[in-house]
Amino acid sequence: MSETEKKHREIDALGEFGLIETLTKDANLKNPSTLKGVGDDAAEIEISAKESILLSTDMLIEGVHFNLSYVPLKSLGFKAVSVNVSDILAMNAKPEQITVSLGISSKFPVEALEELYKGIHAACEFYNVDLVGGDTTSSSSGLLLSISITGRAAKKNICYRSGAKENDLIVVTGDLGTSYLGLQILEREKGVFLENPEIQPKLDGYDELIKKQIQPIARQDVIDTFNEIGLVPSAMIDISDGLASEALHIAKASECSVSIYSEKLPITEKVILTADELNLDPYMCAMNGGEDYELLFTVSQKDYDKIKNHPSFSVIGFVTDKSQDSLLIDKNNSAVRISAQGWKHF
Amino acid sequence: MSETEKKHREIDALGEFGLIETLTKDANLKNPSTLKGVGDDAAEIEISAKESILLSTDMLIEGVHFNLSYVPLKSLGFKAVSVNVSDILAMNAKPEQITVSLGISSKFPVEALEELYKGIHAACEFYNVDLVGGDTTSSSSGLLLSISITGRAAKKNICYRSGAKENDLIVVTGDLGTSYLGLQILEREKGVFLENPEIQPKLDGYDELIKKQIQPIARQDVIDTFNEIGLVPSAMIDISDGLASEALHIAKASECSVSIYSEKLPITEKVILTADELNLDPYMCAMNGGEDYELLFTVSQKDYDKIKNHPSFSVIGFVTDKSQDSLLIDKNNSAVRISAQGWKHF
Repeated sequence: MSETEKKHREIDALGEFGLIETLTKDANLKNPSTLKGVGDDAAEIEISAKESILLSTDMLIEGVHFNLSYVPLKSLGFKAVSVNVSDILAMNAKPEQITVSLGISSKFPVEALEELYKGIHAACEFYNVDLVGGDTTSSSSGLLLSISITGRAAKKNICYRSGAKENDLIVVTGDLGTSYLGLQILEREKGVFLENPEIQPKLDGYDELIKKQIQPIARQDVIDTFNEIGLVPSAMIDISDGLASEALHIAKASECSVSIYSEKLPITEKVILTADELNLDPYMCAMNGGEDYELLFTVSQKDYDKIKNHPSFSVIGFVTDKSQDSLLIDKNNSAVRISAQGWKHF
Repeated sequence: MSETEKKHREIDALGEFGLIETLTKDANLKNPSTLKGVGDDAAEIEISAKESILLSTDMLIEGVHFNLSYVPLKSLGFKAVSVNVSDILAMNAKPEQITVSLGISSKFPVEALEELYKGIHAACEFYNVDLVGGDTTSSSSGLLLSISITGRAAKKNICYRSGAKENDLIVVTGDLGTSYLGLQILEREKGVFLENPEIQPKLDGYDELIKKQIQPIARQDVIDTFNEIGLVPSAMIDISDGLASEALHIAKASECSVSIYSEKLPITEKVILTADELNLDPYMCAMNGGEDYELLFTVSQKDYDKIKNHPSFSVIGFVTDKSQDSLLIDKNNSAVRISAQGWKHF
């Protein structure tokens, strides 16, 4: 292998998170208002003794994050906002403003952009967020969307990845693997269509999977519930790259490990049936399928009464000492070490 | 012309600003903290009775905004931050935090990204700004950089594009056309090199032009000066797309017109000589060359004493009633209507 090839391989070897660490390790925080920089779902900027602004950003690239051959533009616009809103919710904060930067090839008709913005505006209405700025430029290759978002919260309510304590319960909202299987169905039908355009795609019966892939809803309702029941999770993160990856983020930031019970994972019957149909393991879909945009959080055991029996919450495990491995434990009590597959963009 | 072709032409016909207007006209501001949305150099978010946060974003795309064949990556990193800082300064605010999102092809060696980030970190040090977050993803085509920035200011100091009043003086900082001519020299030498790689590029003697193109410095010193001399401009904008375009933005937002005197434009001898060498009109370079990242502002005539004789400031004209045309007036007193050529990305 030549020197050049070695260098070209390095991004793959580092992975996205390693790359971010490498590039931002020299970031030196100088402003006293910067309470939290790189390393959580959003940065935290102090605005008063009691309140902070949260700031986050996400970039979506055609062919990497979405495929316009089966994602309607309006849904893409809605999803792009949801993905950003989810980052602010993961800090237990209220999303408020977004900016939208757009790279488009000149072949894009204005009507298509208007369709995209219909989705963006609809999401802004849904989440009560204001579109306040952006940038529009040409792109030589497909559609690029870069959204930044601000949120606001009382400091005492903000949740970081780093607050989990040994014996805390690990809780996840909604169900897992759904979005990933939606994507697999869309890819399968696209493959069939490319081989024979006469054959109509078979999407009937997969609506709940496809809907969650194409237009996921960020869990603002969960943040409202926390507020109502007076709960501040000890740590929180949103599930964009898969449960395994996110649980390990919390473990790393909190200097602890996690034990997760596969039997406790919230997996719908539809996910089990579809995984079976596609020869996939539903537990792997739940652990490593991405884009669920559910929330993963930890709570002190004393808060168990507040969350038990809530239909949106599943207790899936607990926080362990960092001297242990992070484990996925099955119904026979055999354990495997959790490794993050997540999404590999590189 | 087919229907499809008609549609494809529409983005060109609308132009960047028309497109932004079309896409954001349905943006409905719902949060009381949103004091200013789309339409200025930055959005304004209220954080207390006396203070606001400013938020802006810019996207830079390889082959559209920069050419890696002659822009060193470190300079590109520095410039990307400067461009964003300039938007916050144009609101008369102090830049504080940035997020950097990156799209890269996997062929990019990590060393090249580290070089880019050296420039980003150097600019953060220079402007006293904190890098607090971002996103990193793969791109199928070249390098993409999307930066968002926050700033902070006392509300009473914030300058909008909309505050210019009839008879206000129009003032510009530094000199104009420099960056544009730097780009022309780089393009010329690249052309020569492509035709005959044996010929060394002739860049000697053009340093000030090339430096301003490759690594412009946002005018934080000017904002400090305003603070020292107790001046709050009535309107302000930064010059990214060319003086003509920016002056018309102020005129439109302030519902007025402008008269600018070509003899008053700050043009260096080097710009005149280089324009002559390249068969360009130096006044056109000053009016329509982009990327100067100087500040264009208006002040009440009663503030003239505060700015006269300052080496960074040139009074270039005055604000007129909107019933008049916006004019560029030459030394013989003949006037032409100002039209914005600006940068056409589409």
